[in-house]
Amino acid sequence: MTHLVYPGALHTRFHHALGAMHLMSLAINLLRSKGHTITDGEEEAAILAILLHDIGHGPFSHALEHSLVTGIKHEDISAKLMRDLNVHFEGRLTHAIEIFNGTYPKKFLHQLISGQLDLDRMDYLNRDSFFTGVSEGVISFDRIIKMFNVYDDDLVIEEKGIYSIEKFLIARRLMYWQVYLHKTVIAGEMILVKLLERAKELSATGADLFASPSLNYFLKNDINEANFFSQHENLEHFTNLDDQDIYAAVKVWTKHPDKILSTLCKMLTSRNLYKVEMGNEMANLNRVTFLQDAAVNLLEIKPEEARYFVFTDSIQNRAYNAGVGNIKILMKNNDIVDIAKASDLSNLESLQKTVEKYILCYPRGI
Amino acid sequence: MTHLVYPGALHTRFHHALGAMHLMSLAINLLRSKGHTITDGEEEAAILAILLHDIGHGPFSHALEHSLVTGIKHEDISAKLMRDLNVHFEGRLTHAIEIFNGTYPKKFLHQLISGQLDLDRMDYLNRDSFFTGVSEGVISFDRIIKMFNVYDDDLVIEEKGIYSIEKFLIARRLMYWQVYLHKTVIAGEMILVKLLERAKELSATGADLFASPSLNYFLKNDINEANFFSQHENLEHFTNLDDQDIYAAVKVWTKHPDKILSTLCKMLTSRNLYKVEMGNEMANLNRVTFLQDAAVNLLEIKPEEARYFVFTDSIQNRAYNAGVGNIKILMKNNDIVDIAKASDLSNLESLQKTVEKYILCYPRGI
Amino acid sequence: MTHLVYPGALHTRFHHALGAMHLMSLAINLLRSKGHTITDGEEEAAILAILLHDIGHGPFSHALEHSLVTGIKHEDISAKLMRDLNVHFEGRLTHAIEIFNGTYPKKFLHQLISGQLDLDRMDYLNRDSFFTGVSEGVISFDRIIKMFNVYDDDLVIEEKGIYSIEKFLIARRLMYWQVYLHKTVIAGEMILVKLLERAKELSATGADLFASPSLNYFLKNDINEANFFSQHENLEHFTNLDDQDIYAAVKVWTKHPDKILSTLCKMLTSRNLYKVEMGNEMANLNRVTFLQDAAVNLLEIKPEEARYFVFTDSIQNRAYNAGVGNIKILMKNNDIVDIAKASDLSNLESLQKTVEKYILCYPRGI
Amino acid sequence: MTHLVYPGALHTRFHHALGAMHLMSLAINLLRSKGHTITDGEEEAAILAILLHDIGHGPFSHALEHSLVTGIKHEDISAKLMRDLNVHFEGRLTHAIEIFNGTYPKKFLHQLISGQLDLDRMDYLNRDSFFTGVSEGVISFDRIIKMFNVYDDDLVIEEKGIYSIEKFLIARRLMYWQVYLHKTVIAGEMILVKLLERAKELSATGADLFASPSLNYFLKNDINEANFFSQHENLEHFTNLDDQDIYAAVKVWTKHPDKILSTLCKMLTSRNLYKVEMGNEMANLNRVTFLQDAAVNLLEIKPEEARYFVFTDSIQNRAYNAGVGNIKILMKNNDIVDIAKASDLSNLESLQKTVEKYILCYPRGI
Repeated sequence: MTHLVYPGALHTRFHHALGAMHLMSLAINLLRSKGHTITDGEEEAAILAILLHDIGHGPFSHALEHSLVTGIKHEDISAKLMRDLNVHFEGRLTHAIEIFNGTYPKKFLHQLISGQLDLDRMDYLNRDSFFTGVSEGVISFDRIIKMFNVYDDDLVIEEKGIYSIEKFLIARRLMYWQVYLHKTVIAGEMILVKLLERAKELSATGADLFASPSLNYFLKNDINEANFFSQHENLEHFTNLDDQDIYAAVKVWTKHPDKILSTLCKMLTSRNLYKVEMGNEMANLNRVTFLQDAAVNLLEIKPEEARYFVFTDSIQNRAYNAGVGNIKILMKNNDIVDIAKASDLSNLESLQKTVEKYILCYPRGI
Repeated sequence: MTHLVYPGALHTRFHHALGAMHLMSLAINLLRSKGHTITDGEEEAAILAILLHDIGHGPFSHALEHSLVTGIKHEDISAKLMRDLNVHFEGRLTHAIEIFNGTYPKKFLHQLISGQLDLDRMDYLNRDSFFTGVSEGVISFDRIIKMFNVYDDDLVIEEKGIYSIEKFLIARRLMYWQVYLHKTVIAGEMILVKLLERAKELSATGADLFASPSLNYFLKNDINEANFFSQHENLEHFTNLDDQDIYAAVKVWTKHPDKILSTLCKMLTSRNLYKVEMGNEMANLNRVTFLQDAAVNLLEIKPEEARYFVFTDSIQNRAYNAGVGNIKILMKNNDIVDIAKASDLSNLESLQKTVEKYILCYPRGI
Repeated sequence: MTHLVYPGALHTRFHHALGAMHLMSLAINLLRSKGHTITDGEEEAAILAILLHDIGHGPFSHALEHSLVTGIKHEDISAKLMRDLNVHFEGRLTHAIEIFNGTYPKKFLHQLISGQLDLDRMDYLNRDSFFTGVSEGVISFDRIIKMFNVYDDDLVIEEKGIYSIEKFLIARRLMYWQVYLHKTVIAGEMILVKLLERAKELSATGADLFASPSLNYFLKNDINEANFFSQHENLEHFTNLDDQDIYAAVKVWTKHPDKILSTLCKMLTSRNLYKVEMGNEMANLNRVTFLQDAAVNLLEIKPEEARYFVFTDSIQNRAYNAGVGNIKILMKNNDIVDIAKASDLSNLESLQKTVEKYILCYPRGI
Repeated sequence: MTHLVYPGALHTRFHHALGAMHLMSLAINLLRSKGHTITDGEEEAAILAILLHDIGHGPFSHALEHSLVTGIKHEDISAKLMRDLNVHFEGRLTHAIEIFNGTYPKKFLHQLISGQLDLDRMDYLNRDSFFTGVSEGVISFDRIIKMFNVYDDDLVIEEKGIYSIEKFLIARRLMYWQVYLHKTVIAGEMILVKLLERAKELSATGADLFASPSLNYFLKNDINEANFFSQHENLEHFTNLDDQDIYAAVKVWTKHPDKILSTLCKMLTSRNLYKVEMGNEMANLNRVTFLQDAAVNLLEIKPEEARYFVFTDSIQNRAYNAGVGNIKILMKNNDIVDIAKASDLSNLESLQKTVEKYILCYPRGI
């Protein structure tokens, strides 16, 4: 939903997967040039692992996970899809899967894919900066990769790279607040959550809803963590679903007879989004009640329907956690020191705490 | 379809309209600073005119114009939509429409929107360069705009800007061949044309096809230049249609019982596109026949169905025409000279000729 | 001396003055657009003040201040030159001087030139990033300027700009360590200090030294804070002196009969610089003595001459001080809050402490 | 002298040599990846050859060649310096010299250094674009290098690269007119030529002139092609001379008792340059006489001294010659075709003709 704020941000997971794959090639060449052995087979495996690391994400992953499907972890879906591909390719992905899962002996290969300083983050920070135009997120990925080394099977950063790492951690923090957790982005996501919830409820009551077959499948069936992997068609429909199924349906639903659904859909398509208030404390209950009453009047809906338009939530789960610890610095004297110790920005560790924010959403015009 | 070659090229007409609007602001400020009077009303009108100049384009305009709807000019649709908006806004767009149509007295305002060196082209060249990464298309739009002037109600370029104009004309030529007429882009567009043609034929025979209501409308009805503007719902469905209706349907049609349709849709979704040969002469007929026979065997289809998979076409209509003439240079001695004369790149005029290319498409694997 | 590490960094104070002047224009336009009155005269004065703010710097200012001239503050020279220009231009710079000195009523104009977030810093950070290629220093100066506002005659930043300010403070810190205080840059500066010291000593003993007339003047005369402004020719020679006088002389001095001088000059011209050790504590005295003995042997010099080649120093004076406090944030509710409080990067204030580093220099090859 | 127009353009031949060396590494890796054998020794030799290709240039080469030293070709000086280095390094540069001279068997290595599409040009076009900010000169050197191939021992470009080559040729043309032959750049160079001429004349009459020893040597002695290589000290002084000797002297000469010299020096240091008229035909003689008379009055000089201030010249020698021919394109069918034939920009060959321009210089204020 970032494109609601930064119109250029229409880039996709496909770009990201290609970019991360490219960074993996660079990193492997660099590590080889420093004398670390990485076989051709390991190179292929590492590249495949990062190419596929996000394959289990559905469209609008966070929004969908709170509405259409519930409690299914995208990592589990990625793992399942990789296993299926491994069958198809007759075992060729075995090492890739081990690297992805962290069970392959050279554990630094896993750290390149998933860790405090992995190529995944390095790609998306730069990519998101490019497509949003928010220069705060630009990082020197090429310089950071040049500072990579391996020590005791751990991915480490050479001392000269400390300032680039500081910059990376700060850039990530800034992108969270300026882009990923921008109020308008959250408003767009919340409205999508609410309209999909409503669509699913209507579907449960037998209402007729335009939907592609795969979207229809998730509207009609309750798919959750327990039953997701038990039926093959679940996975087939899930992988078949993309943003276009959702958007094409939302456009049609703007004319649906159900007032809640059509109102929410029109709010999204005409960019008349919720107003979002964000703070360090939960919203005052009286204020919520007041806003719900106002929404009932404004939209001419029933009191029990106000919860689609006025509600609170918290965003701690997705909140920023730089995880400063665990980035190991290889000092010139060959000691290994945690970045939080090595940096004379003494309290870099403050980046580590989880920031929890509370949000309150309500319609504009109240 | 450019994203099939340059994955980052997912930018939209919306971005382009905003960008062109921004350039219009710059140009108007510049012309005012050179002493030309442009009232606030004229500024608003010029900005509205360029904001709306492309509003009549449908999704995949070229592809659609050759399949779903026929013979309707996007300029006419733009004009109609602007008239409707003018009614809605009670006459506020009257001057904008005059500028768009070229009937407003200060004709240089129209030339800023539509001419050999308009802000439309200046925006899309730079935008397409940015999102494709093809640096050949980067132009110094800010420098060109700084060289703008008005002479005898004509938009002219000051002499110092000649080299920037040369660069602009060459950049445009290079973008045509490296991006807009790239074989893979053409292959993607042709496959979309063919599958929409097939869908429409099937629809005419009463076949059941998944489609959003607006897409369904154009599949079921024959809409052409003659009847388009006679019924209001034509325009409503047309504006409602976007890429997502098409892509969502194409994904579903990959499983349609009609072999032609499902094969074409699978070719597009799995990026198994036509092979395209491009040349200065029409393809040899024997070769076409040979390829059609081969396609019949390969795909196990009937001979009369081969035309969906093996065919020729020409792309002269959309070919590159720099229209070098008509760019007027204001010399230091106040003479007005055509760029083709002013540039000592003596044969810049060679850019003027229309280049016609013939294409031959056929399935890979023959 | 930055070009010894980053060869592209040959940019000059002249560029910086032009750039800061440009930013001043942007800032003034922005503040006017937010309703603050800045007269045309004030605009001219502010632009002149920032154009001239660094005019009192000599070549290699820090190096020179520790060798050729002693104890003269460049701010005082700037002020004197501005007063002289004001006489020449018959009072036209009066307001510019007041703004520069901070005595003009609208004190935010002074803050734009000299403060925790002035246009001076904004220009040099970006300029130095561009010419060194160290991307860590890139800041969104245009975005920061858009967040400028004035409250109670104080330059303040609107709340939305907090993250850009954090980025700015961090960028400045990173540029200090990666560029301004890079060991090789320090080595180059120290060698210049030592060779100018030696040249001055030789000159005092009547030795013949190639030098342009202005350089000769400072070699032959003891100019210090007390007598600098008492004789007009001091200032004339000072402003006449530039890097080229120094470099041209250094090249000639490589062949001077004095071994100390010629050795130091050859070290600089052939880039055989001191080795520099940097630490949080002063170097161990035994180590210094050991290195001096080694230098005496290596270079075949007298013990009392070793101090030109082996010495310690501290760089606290020029060390990094972000001065986080004093950047005032204008919250959405119109409160004014210090950035150190407004930022939830709770210990941003840690940036505030002065970092003192001790250096130890000695010749390579010991 | 380009910095007189584009202040950032202070980059040096040293940068250029490093950059060209870097491009050579890229090109060699690319050609190896296409199956061409280049031994490690050949790689070192080619890299050395391009690193040293410009080493024989003096400061302000064109200006100096017309005043201080006459008729000595920088290529000959480069060759001589390389031979001297080869002696010093005991034959290690033998192959580098052969590649530089074009006598090494693999002649494509020479073409990478000197040809219509060599790495020399590729580096300076991009470098000059970067430091001047003239975006017209930006070329896709990485893409062009990717299109390199070798056929029959000739460096060729693969067909897909045709448009990038067109862009390169046009970019070069535009840089000539917007940068290298900019009137202000020419004015700066001409003034330097004239003041060095005058200084040399004065020196011949025994006048006392401040100068570094090496500059003094060329003022006092007549060094020309015939005697340059006969005395070792010629070369030593020549290599010792740089821009700083010249500028440091020019500053001092602004106070020289000779009015011609001091006037010319003041014109340069205070940027009060000649006015330059450029045209396709030689200036009218009457006009020159008229301007000389005016200069005599304006500057209060003797008629025979007017030639330092008012004069004509032509710039054909350094004029733009794209040399379109000789760029060989490797077509997909393995034919080799000249770019002038392969490009459908049919008259690209028009780029080939030498453009001669006539200039007329005179003081401002006439």
